[in-house]
Amino acid sequence: MGKLARRVAMIGAGMSKFGAHFPHKRNPDLWIDAWLDAVSRVDNGINPKDIDACYVGNYSSDLFNHQGHLGPQMADLVGLVPKPAGRFEGACASSGIALRQAILAIASGVHDVIAVSGVECMTEQPTVNVTDILATASDSLFEYPAGATFPGLYGTLASAHFHKYGTTVEDLMRVGIKNHENGKENPYAQMQSSIADMMESKIAKIEKSGGEVPDWKDEFDFLKSRSNPIIAYPLRLFDCSLITDGAACVFLGAEDVVKNFTDDPIWITGTGQGSAALSLHDRNELTSFIATKEAARQAYEMSGLKPKDIQVAEVHDCFTIAEIIALEDLGFYEKGKAAEAIKNGETKRDGSMPINTSGGLKSKGHPVGATGAAFCVEAFKQMRGIAERNRQVKFDVERMLTHNLGGSGATCVVTIFEKER
Amino acid sequence: MGKLARRVAMIGAGMSKFGAHFPHKRNPDLWIDAWLDAVSRVDNGINPKDIDACYVGNYSSDLFNHQGHLGPQMADLVGLVPKPAGRFEGACASSGIALRQAILAIASGVHDVIAVSGVECMTEQPTVNVTDILATASDSLFEYPAGATFPGLYGTLASAHFHKYGTTVEDLMRVGIKNHENGKENPYAQMQSSIADMMESKIAKIEKSGGEVPDWKDEFDFLKSRSNPIIAYPLRLFDCSLITDGAACVFLGAEDVVKNFTDDPIWITGTGQGSAALSLHDRNELTSFIATKEAARQAYEMSGLKPKDIQVAEVHDCFTIAEIIALEDLGFYEKGKAAEAIKNGETKRDGSMPINTSGGLKSKGHPVGATGAAFCVEAFKQMRGIAERNRQVKFDVERMLTHNLGGSGATCVVTIFEKER
Repeated sequence: MGKLARRVAMIGAGMSKFGAHFPHKRNPDLWIDAWLDAVSRVDNGINPKDIDACYVGNYSSDLFNHQGHLGPQMADLVGLVPKPAGRFEGACASSGIALRQAILAIASGVHDVIAVSGVECMTEQPTVNVTDILATASDSLFEYPAGATFPGLYGTLASAHFHKYGTTVEDLMRVGIKNHENGKENPYAQMQSSIADMMESKIAKIEKSGGEVPDWKDEFDFLKSRSNPIIAYPLRLFDCSLITDGAACVFLGAEDVVKNFTDDPIWITGTGQGSAALSLHDRNELTSFIATKEAARQAYEMSGLKPKDIQVAEVHDCFTIAEIIALEDLGFYEKGKAAEAIKNGETKRDGSMPINTSGGLKSKGHPVGATGAAFCVEAFKQMRGIAERNRQVKFDVERMLTHNLGGSGATCVVTIFEKER
Repeated sequence: MGKLARRVAMIGAGMSKFGAHFPHKRNPDLWIDAWLDAVSRVDNGINPKDIDACYVGNYSSDLFNHQGHLGPQMADLVGLVPKPAGRFEGACASSGIALRQAILAIASGVHDVIAVSGVECMTEQPTVNVTDILATASDSLFEYPAGATFPGLYGTLASAHFHKYGTTVEDLMRVGIKNHENGKENPYAQMQSSIADMMESKIAKIEKSGGEVPDWKDEFDFLKSRSNPIIAYPLRLFDCSLITDGAACVFLGAEDVVKNFTDDPIWITGTGQGSAALSLHDRNELTSFIATKEAARQAYEMSGLKPKDIQVAEVHDCFTIAEIIALEDLGFYEKGKAAEAIKNGETKRDGSMPINTSGGLKSKGHPVGATGAAFCVEAFKQMRGIAERNRQVKFDVERMLTHNLGGSGATCVVTIFEKER
């Protein structure tokens, strides 16, 4: 794997508010919200005439919205026709792939500025359909007919991790508690409540209805109660990310043109992508994703950085177990050691290795095709020092990493951002 | 638009037999057929270890086969895991986009060799569903609810062309007659019969059944009969391309490594991509595609060639009218003049500008996501002088062009191939 023929930087990034927006908003509306938000963050302004192409990450508007061919639709809405526009798909890593292809396209010399779009409108479908549609990112000839859904597949991975490393349900819960505490500080997040808030609200509701007030001493008691039902053992409701409508937009520019847009570019110094067999039964290992390891290896090699050099990361917590596996696969912690670090508070906003300051997929929401691009929005904000409310980390972020996983780990895209080189 | 930072060549290409293969073969089987066919055409051999990534073009396995996330599935089948694998979508131009992104990825310096895959398995669905699924590549909020399907949309475009330029149903029929004559010579084609053959076979059938033998003097009489019913005026059955299962595989390499694989590379000297509004009602012009004009402009500019320099082309004849519009938009003929050239035989195999020697989508078949990659297979064969049966053109093909259209013209990818530079 070679070096990029020229340097590429992020010059702006933005997103729609994540939430349940259908039918008030669909993909076109969400994308325009994200576009305008991103435009507002380009220091010297940006205009469609400055942009060479539109790269759209989307998992399955085909199945969610009966609309294919999103590339030109999204390009047309923001005045980019007749420029190149295409859609990129890798399950929940779709806009991670769009981002990576845009980086390579700029490095190739052919394009100077690309608008990367991530969009997904999931709530047009009832939840049972959403679960079915997501399951098409597993192996539809083997896993799907056997009744496997994503909570089931990740439940299997969690059980394997429990067995091998002694990970516990409390370890999973700590990931959710931390991410909701972050999401509470993100005005774009779908759920802006901590789990403690939700517990109190639940208690108040029970009291008001005259029911028997539960004896919950802390969030763990709440999370182990029937208020947090088991979805697929050991995963409970609050171990699962959200069903979300949302979009994100990232503007990338070549080193030659970056100064037209900003004096404060965020350089992309590493990009990596890996793959694995779709089916869990085709893999040698259930407690680690080879796609993540390969993507991380490539990104670290390209940037010349090591895991210890990364200061802050956004990782793909589609389920709480996925965050634990990611922290280990990315090399931030040894295998089996991430849960202890989480317990010690290291991954909190004020810890030594803040993870998912945005709230993560767990609290910010997970419009699957938009997630990869939305990670970049948090990277942009943390590295510029403009993260809203109380979630900006307390040191200058010079080196950040985003990790975008697809399916049950068959696709992974890792991106490394740096402020100065 | 800039130049490619390094040169890229096609070092091998192959395809599955196109046809109605489900349930005997699905996407994985078709892809392996294409892969093996392509491997057999790499002069010095090629091995998974030589290949850096797998770029999959597919329109909607989501809707056709209830399987998303094709990238890693296709990569895994040919031993490319854990390398990068992703899916690219632009309706019927999906593998054209995969091809273009692979070109840019190699030019970027990051990858040296990429396997481009195009796959689609359409006959898993009954024809009425196929028509519905294809219609999701139109605007699903405006055109689709109004009952527009692709034959209807292209019928509208044909009527507009008739009105503006005096094009006739016979002009359309000549495209089909020529492409079936070519497809008869292609052992990979879905329909290997000329329209004259099919007319004779129909007459023989009627005679055998004791029916009244029709008074057909030539193919035009046959094509105007009830044996060729109107689908959407002025388009009849034989103006429409086929519903097909198939796959194609193209190996691309960087100039630095090409010599490891062959002494006879086919250089890609131009790539262009354009877009347009999804809906016909959002466009200023119905007799020309701005996406094609933009893609062609970029590709000609990059290669330094002009339309008159192109010797042979494969163009996207999803409907017969589309071939006529393409020949004009690509600059081979002035607007309104292509039909006359076709009438004069210029676009036949032995004409001055052979078009769709493969048989085109009309006779070779149109597994939508595979079509863009399959065009490259014909380019590879014609430029190497190895096209089967009687369809090899009678001069050395040094410069060839492929034209891949998506939807009703909202996406277009144009690629220019040259033997020596």
